[in-house]
Amino acid sequence: MMEEIVKLQHHVVMLQQQISPENSNPPPGKEQQAAGVGILLQIMMLVLSFVLGHVLRRHKVYYLPEASASLLIGLIVGGLANISNTESSIRTWFNFHEEFFFLFLLPPIIFQSGFSLAPKPFFSNFGAIVTFAIVGTFTASVVTGVLVYLGGLTFLMYRLPFVECLMFGALISATDPVTVLSIFQEFGTDMNLYALVFGESVLNDAMAISLYRTMASVQSHDSSGKNFFMVVIRFLETFVGSLSSGVGVGFISALLFKYAGLDVENLQNLECCLFVLFPYFSYMLAEGLGLSGIVSILFTGMVMKHYTFSNLSENSQRFVAAFFHLISSLAETFVFIYMGFDIAMEKHSWSHVGFIFFSILFIVIARAANVFGCAYLVNLVRPANRQIPVKHQKALWYSGLRGAMAFALALQSVHDLPEGHGQTIFTATTAIVVLTVLLIGGSTGTMLEALQVVGDANDGPLGESFDGNTGYIAPSYDEGTSSGSRLKMRLKEFHKSTASFTALDRNYLTPFFTTQNGDVEEEFGKT
Amino acid sequence: MMEEIVKLQHHVVMLQQQISPENSNPPPGKEQQAAGVGILLQIMMLVLSFVLGHVLRRHKVYYLPEASASLLIGLIVGGLANISNTESSIRTWFNFHEEFFFLFLLPPIIFQSGFSLAPKPFFSNFGAIVTFAIVGTFTASVVTGVLVYLGGLTFLMYRLPFVECLMFGALISATDPVTVLSIFQEFGTDMNLYALVFGESVLNDAMAISLYRTMASVQSHDSSGKNFFMVVIRFLETFVGSLSSGVGVGFISALLFKYAGLDVENLQNLECCLFVLFPYFSYMLAEGLGLSGIVSILFTGMVMKHYTFSNLSENSQRFVAAFFHLISSLAETFVFIYMGFDIAMEKHSWSHVGFIFFSILFIVIARAANVFGCAYLVNLVRPANRQIPVKHQKALWYSGLRGAMAFALALQSVHDLPEGHGQTIFTATTAIVVLTVLLIGGSTGTMLEALQVVGDANDGPLGESFDGNTGYIAPSYDEGTSSGSRLKMRLKEFHKSTASFTALDRNYLTPFFTTQNGDVEEEFGKT
Repeated sequence: MMEEIVKLQHHVVMLQQQISPENSNPPPGKEQQAAGVGILLQIMMLVLSFVLGHVLRRHKVYYLPEASASLLIGLIVGGLANISNTESSIRTWFNFHEEFFFLFLLPPIIFQSGFSLAPKPFFSNFGAIVTFAIVGTFTASVVTGVLVYLGGLTFLMYRLPFVECLMFGALISATDPVTVLSIFQEFGTDMNLYALVFGESVLNDAMAISLYRTMASVQSHDSSGKNFFMVVIRFLETFVGSLSSGVGVGFISALLFKYAGLDVENLQNLECCLFVLFPYFSYMLAEGLGLSGIVSILFTGMVMKHYTFSNLSENSQRFVAAFFHLISSLAETFVFIYMGFDIAMEKHSWSHVGFIFFSILFIVIARAANVFGCAYLVNLVRPANRQIPVKHQKALWYSGLRGAMAFALALQSVHDLPEGHGQTIFTATTAIVVLTVLLIGGSTGTMLEALQVVGDANDGPLGESFDGNTGYIAPSYDEGTSSGSRLKMRLKEFHKSTASFTALDRNYLTPFFTTQNGDVEEEFGKT
Repeated sequence: MMEEIVKLQHHVVMLQQQISPENSNPPPGKEQQAAGVGILLQIMMLVLSFVLGHVLRRHKVYYLPEASASLLIGLIVGGLANISNTESSIRTWFNFHEEFFFLFLLPPIIFQSGFSLAPKPFFSNFGAIVTFAIVGTFTASVVTGVLVYLGGLTFLMYRLPFVECLMFGALISATDPVTVLSIFQEFGTDMNLYALVFGESVLNDAMAISLYRTMASVQSHDSSGKNFFMVVIRFLETFVGSLSSGVGVGFISALLFKYAGLDVENLQNLECCLFVLFPYFSYMLAEGLGLSGIVSILFTGMVMKHYTFSNLSENSQRFVAAFFHLISSLAETFVFIYMGFDIAMEKHSWSHVGFIFFSILFIVIARAANVFGCAYLVNLVRPANRQIPVKHQKALWYSGLRGAMAFALALQSVHDLPEGHGQTIFTATTAIVVLTVLLIGGSTGTMLEALQVVGDANDGPLGESFDGNTGYIAPSYDEGTSSGSRLKMRLKEFHKSTASFTALDRNYLTPFFTTQNGDVEEEFGKT
């Protein structure tokens, strides 16, 4: 009896510790003061990151890009806070909450990715990007998952159930666009390579999160492996559903701004308020429907840039472009600081060094399977003068650093999976993120120079083989069809459908959704 | 023994219920889906409010201003959600969290107030505004508190301890600037009246929150009435400390932007990022120091507009002005929706109708004491041609509607005070907020017309007696000093100090903190 009481009392203490500070009853203002200190520290780190990033860029220090600098600042401050005995109420303001990340930090970053997408190189490489992002990420996830599972079976590393291996494979396949791309921009590389890396890294986040969620629901319902096709179908449902809801919201916004007549002088504020609410609306609509908000907001961004944007007044256009740029760069920098801080604060189970070592090896192999495999498929269908050169494939393979998305999903896996498993995955992911951000981020410049892909667009030895200006929809289909293989024909059909999409856009969508008549898009759609 | 176990088990259940949803373990994605639905609803209400507000303005329906419309939308949707059985996980996304209000919604609103302050009419009425805001709010708080206490003693209403009465007095003395001012702008009223109403309502929020916090700390330490002077001194410490930290941060930002050389073409994003972080920094610095963030950010806003703003590049100036306008109008609209929703959802103790009735009566009296009393003081010192006319006093008295600040403080009092007391105060405040927003907000236009203070600035019967362009620093002090009363002399000294401030600003501050040499400020500072 006594034991029971002691146990219960222990339980009470544990629960009381779990209760978030809002629910307890501290002296008035005290709680807010702690929050103030926490947020103050975060703002100071943000300012420091911006200033440091600026100084580094100005002095052309490419081996420490802004994202790495932010991560390091977070790590250092987190380490200091860990050594000193910071009040736990301040500490709660620093923990990485996946919810906060998914609901408030991620949407602006992804929207900005879609919104800032240069339509021409993106669409002229659309087939390749989709192949890398969908087929490639799927391949990488499965390869990683299977290798980790086999590693577990052969006692090379910590043993996880197969579904959990696939979850790990999915979450670790999400590459981060931020750091590599800023360096690409700085160096000025081939536009097609840039479009490939950018498009792939944005879309594969969406793919990885969908895969992870699908696997997580399989895991929690314990119907693992029961029906592989059901899993694929559920995934496709999510993906297509999210895509359509995103595109739908984008189209609605285009029509609203076309007909509401808000583009007059004194309504600029109203116009901008409504414009900035739409992306978030799209994200939350998809989440509320149980779909993927990130896929949805990405496509909303693309549609809004392409159609809605041109219906705005000129002042509002300038404003919203600067607004989304500002918000997303704040969110991005904050994510890296936050991540660094949390990595320094969280408890890690470093006992499984083997797991970390082998998973790094496996993701390198899996990314190779993704990039070189998909590049082979793409090259099968592309005419000789549009092949993806091996140098670009290597650059793409190298630029797969893991960032906030992998981290956030790993943190979620700590909640989703049984005790030790989630912790192991989390620690491994953390190590991979820190290593890849610092190493790959720091060496991308060197890599680009070594591969001789530096320099603007189409000059240099690669110029003639990879000319963006001739457009993707090259008039060379008939000769290709003779090669006969069925796969090749399928791929070409898909290829053609992107061409006809461009025509559809020019002839119907642009005139319908914008106040333009499609002529201004001529340049973009020319064959 | 058995009883003890049962008690403990009960405790465990209670604690488990208190644990916020993040800590429990719902199926993956489920929690996020609920959040998605909650936020989605909020965005839809926001869009609805903006559209409705626009339509109402266009059709010149002044008896339902935007804030009232937002409040009504919140009330209606909240009522519907209350009737239908909404999932509690969605519901948690709607509760009015004072922390969220104070940390994320209030700062942009108050900063924008300071930032958009037209310096000329504000500074030329500075003495009057400060008198109304500080002396007046203090008077109103004490009068309300004492009357409520006396009401309790004479069994007219629910009886509260004296300190709690003063807390109620403080929180209910915070008037809301939003609604009335938008109507003032719409009608176009005398600039001096506008400056008085605006300045008073912004500064008195800061005053009320400082008073409330001071009283709350007195209440929690149970040292009530022990030392009245200590209370006053603590209040002054808070107020002066917050003011200095706000002004200090503003000056630092001005120097940073003056010397950092960020006003070149391609650094606009960095410039804007840093600029938007400063106000928040100021707010959190003050909160972290245990001071009042709202006072601090208000003055940061004023300083940043006056000095820092002119150091920005032209594009960034346009951008940040639009940015703060956008953010604050989103926050404002959201606050009214949120408040309406929460009022409909919370449990209220309607048993104390008497308390509500008499407190409405008392705040009307207290506001009269504030406005007419302070106007008397101000008129004592002003030359005959600058007296505040009785019509303006009446308009000022009438425009004291209570809004989000009172509501948030009342909600906090539920945590700060013993069970029934906080609940009574909260219900009364809620009723007062809804009544004043709907009634005063709806009738301000009629009131302005009835008092014949409609029409731009200095024409009409009031023109000659109240001319803003002659400036506040009128050359008529010497003749006034002969009247002799000591109070009057004190007031005049204060009066003169504002005049010398203008000179200080023109000759030293503006040249030091901005790239201008002070000449452009000539117009503003002219006597």
